[in-house]
Amino acid sequence: MNAIHGLAVHAAGAHLLPYKYDAGELKEDEVEVKISHCGVCYSDVHLIDNDWSISKYPFIPGHEIVGTITQIGSAVDDRVLGERVGIGWQANSCSVCEWCRQGDEHLCAKSQPTCVGRNGGYADSIRVNWRFALRVPEVLESENVAPLLCGGITVYSPLRNLGVRPSSRVGIIGIGGLGHMGIQFAKAFGAEVTAFSTSKDKEAEALELGAHHFVNTRDTGAIKKVAGSFDLLLSTVNADQDWQGYVNALRPKGSFVFLGAPPTPVPLQVSALIFGQKCVAGSPTGSPHDIEEMLDVAARHGIKAITERFEMAKANEAVAKVKKNQVRYRAVLAN
Amino acid sequence: MNAIHGLAVHAAGAHLLPYKYDAGELKEDEVEVKISHCGVCYSDVHLIDNDWSISKYPFIPGHEIVGTITQIGSAVDDRVLGERVGIGWQANSCSVCEWCRQGDEHLCAKSQPTCVGRNGGYADSIRVNWRFALRVPEVLESENVAPLLCGGITVYSPLRNLGVRPSSRVGIIGIGGLGHMGIQFAKAFGAEVTAFSTSKDKEAEALELGAHHFVNTRDTGAIKKVAGSFDLLLSTVNADQDWQGYVNALRPKGSFVFLGAPPTPVPLQVSALIFGQKCVAGSPTGSPHDIEEMLDVAARHGIKAITERFEMAKANEAVAKVKKNQVRYRAVLAN
Repeated sequence: MNAIHGLAVHAAGAHLLPYKYDAGELKEDEVEVKISHCGVCYSDVHLIDNDWSISKYPFIPGHEIVGTITQIGSAVDDRVLGERVGIGWQANSCSVCEWCRQGDEHLCAKSQPTCVGRNGGYADSIRVNWRFALRVPEVLESENVAPLLCGGITVYSPLRNLGVRPSSRVGIIGIGGLGHMGIQFAKAFGAEVTAFSTSKDKEAEALELGAHHFVNTRDTGAIKKVAGSFDLLLSTVNADQDWQGYVNALRPKGSFVFLGAPPTPVPLQVSALIFGQKCVAGSPTGSPHDIEEMLDVAARHGIKAITERFEMAKANEAVAKVKKNQVRYRAVLAN
Repeated sequence: MNAIHGLAVHAAGAHLLPYKYDAGELKEDEVEVKISHCGVCYSDVHLIDNDWSISKYPFIPGHEIVGTITQIGSAVDDRVLGERVGIGWQANSCSVCEWCRQGDEHLCAKSQPTCVGRNGGYADSIRVNWRFALRVPEVLESENVAPLLCGGITVYSPLRNLGVRPSSRVGIIGIGGLGHMGIQFAKAFGAEVTAFSTSKDKEAEALELGAHHFVNTRDTGAIKKVAGSFDLLLSTVNADQDWQGYVNALRPKGSFVFLGAPPTPVPLQVSALIFGQKCVAGSPTGSPHDIEEMLDVAARHGIKAITERFEMAKANEAVAKVKKNQVRYRAVLAN
């Protein structure tokens, strides 16, 4: 038996319990990775609680994985033993559809998430298709890299793909797990960055991370005051907001991008979109190519997730703290 | 007195009455155009009825104007007497803001609409800044060109600016004044075109105009059947629809563009946007550059508005018929 040991959840909302599974024979296109770190993403909480009705119990959560390669499949010639790699939301894709072939593997209809219908990174090891075991630049610390692999690419992807430039004005809504990385990446693109938060006490840190301005959204009229100001707004929050106010805060041709889904449908005034030629979009994680690019950018610009470290055995504690939004800003489990 | 004679509306929803105004001295950057044709756009109806609360009475409606230049201001060196020109939604802009200077004059905050706060094209003549008196290719008939100047550019602009290609799958929702031009332009981009309509009796004409497929949206489940099919959907309708069904009809990375505003806010399920990396946008008219480009495309591809002609004196009849959606597909007033 090729046993992998981890911590699994057996029913919606249950605690993590020690668990082992037989990984079987290594497939020819797989690598096995000995996990050193795994981030606790809010998506793990959603999966543990079955918020998206896609969870299959029991399963080991975790999809922000850093580790070293300990086994290599016979058909893999682009990875070496002992190499440090990162694994994000995705563990495999079909590799032959139009999305895979144009470098949009994250949009593949057969995309295999790392911890849905299989076991993820709250474990000692994991196996994935080699194309999703991504190279990590040497200069980056594993603990700070782990959260980039899902949270980081989620904020990086729209900045990249919507063409943010040094002349762009970018707003990051919500300064938490995603937002604190969003500020850093937006700054790396050279943009003028505004942080929006309900927590006045995050102002100093937001400015330190690279924001040029801070808007306390609890201030009456604060969002109205910045009407017509932004080329791009990234919403990292999961709560209902003054969405129309934010659409009005866009400049002509501006885009508002949801990275998190609010609990209720967003009522959209279409005329505001038409007259300003504006766009409201959603963005998921990103492709393997974009993740490796993002890691290079992080290395070049000294970007890192601010982490709180937990021993792997204390994963339940970490998950509980993430769920209560008490971590500043990303929890990472370490073996 | 430099009198211009036309038909004006004096109060919200009132009939058009003969009207004359003094155009004063010709400004150095203006041209005067003797009007041969003027389209009756649904926006004229909105302005007549003050639906957008921006109408200033009395005013002469009309912003799809074709005519010949009869006077040229002293500072104009790029237009000649007797030249045929077209005038659309816009009669002037500031010319110095960032939008004007990058060829997005239609987004200029000081954009001067042709018939809001000034008099439009249901008249014998009009004066506009020369930059908005646009060249019309010789091969095009004035009557069929007039509706291109607002309706045509409205459908052309998103096809152009969202990068439609011969591999794209485009849907046009609503086969009326805008939609019948949308089909033709989408075909000119080489796309696979689907027409969506509540009127089964428009199928033959839609196919003749260039649509490859026709979806009768009154058929139960018709929109569900085309889930995941389109790179771009253009909505030309003003009534509430199954918007979520249409968003689901987009392929990954697809865009849904509103060209007309529905009466009630659109409730948007954000998760559908996130997982498919989709976008919901609005698009207004287009820039002078894009209008001239569109006219060239129309000339090259034999694209024209299908028109119903009315004598200028029968403008009230034309407006009433447009208001009742009884024109197939664009009413044009002729002097």
